[in-house]
Amino acid sequence: MTPTQIYFDFLCPYAWRGLELADVLRREHAHTFELRHFSLVQGNHPENAASRHVPVWWLTDQTNGEGSAAQSSSLLAFLADQAAARQSEDARWRFVLTLFRAVHQDKAELNEATVEAAARTAGLDLAQFGTDRQIDPVRTDLRADLAAAAELGVFGTPTFVLPQGHAAYFRFANLVPSEKALETYQLYVSVLESDARIETIKRAKRA
Amino acid sequence: MTPTQIYFDFLCPYAWRGLELADVLRREHAHTFELRHFSLVQGNHPENAASRHVPVWWLTDQTNGEGSAAQSSSLLAFLADQAAARQSEDARWRFVLTLFRAVHQDKAELNEATVEAAARTAGLDLAQFGTDRQIDPVRTDLRADLAAAAELGVFGTPTFVLPQGHAAYFRFANLVPSEKALETYQLYVSVLESDARIETIKRAKRA
Repeated sequence: MTPTQIYFDFLCPYAWRGLELADVLRREHAHTFELRHFSLVQGNHPENAASRHVPVWWLTDQTNGEGSAAQSSSLLAFLADQAAARQSEDARWRFVLTLFRAVHQDKAELNEATVEAAARTAGLDLAQFGTDRQIDPVRTDLRADLAAAAELGVFGTPTFVLPQGHAAYFRFANLVPSEKALETYQLYVSVLESDARIETIKRAKRA
Repeated sequence: MTPTQIYFDFLCPYAWRGLELADVLRREHAHTFELRHFSLVQGNHPENAASRHVPVWWLTDQTNGEGSAAQSSSLLAFLADQAAARQSEDARWRFVLTLFRAVHQDKAELNEATVEAAARTAGLDLAQFGTDRQIDPVRTDLRADLAAAAELGVFGTPTFVLPQGHAAYFRFANLVPSEKALETYQLYVSVLESDARIETIKRAKRA
């Protein structure tokens, strides 16, 4: 079965809620998802303003620790997650959710200490994780995700790419309880599958 | 029953499809709608870039025929529709849909001749219509719509404002056949009423 891809950035609280939703579907409803990275810092970078499809400035071309806090912390977290992805799928999901909860639920800073604590809590093989974070292929894998996101035109996270090809940003403000997960996700899928070819539903914000 | 408000601009093909959908709901499913104007030219005007809620540049401050084709034709059409609104509700809907179809289905220019033809086809009282288009209150009514849209944070059309207060842009690319109208609209309403507080579903566009 073709998995549904989810593009996400650890900086984004909406991505966190989207992944919590997906995790319920994965554990309780046999959905399959593939986790992929989209960088908000890269997507919103002024040098990339001309086209979302042809980035000029790449997060993966930056050295570790360089740039704004958002830049360096997102690169740190992405590379750590690409390393986690080299362990089991379940271990990766635990790592991703633990890190998201630390940052967006417990308001920890997204930094080295938080990443290491998440790896421990998630039960990763820490020696392997420490080694893998330093190798070139994790940066290559991250680059491949960012390139795929650019090709798709991803502009925000979470963006789900359904097996039949629909791809859309799905932003919601409230954590969805487990028993509502399937219904909420089905609503999103129904919007994308509607014969009306719905392109956007977006709330207006009052003054 | 509190009507659902629909903000629209005659320039917008998505507003056309939204009003066709609403017209089916109105005629066949006893929904009530209130038609209101939002101006894309005003909303996207560089002088209004600082805040969508506090316009500096108002379409209603411009003289007839002034500015770009989009500016002068949208002002022309809005004032004509405010005049049509002074006749019966059904006559106004006929006028609005006839004008939308002329422009977006038959690709007529949005100009004086097209507006006059739509008024005739819609069966408006043409003498009354001709008089009402010139009076100050139609410009005041237009201004009130544009001010209400700014307060709500409308940024595109169609934007529906549900009786319970949800307000969201609803953009779809395909005309909805009558027999699918209720289901399509219910999908949009369900998204807005979801406990997840869905703020945005927006497709990514591939390169």
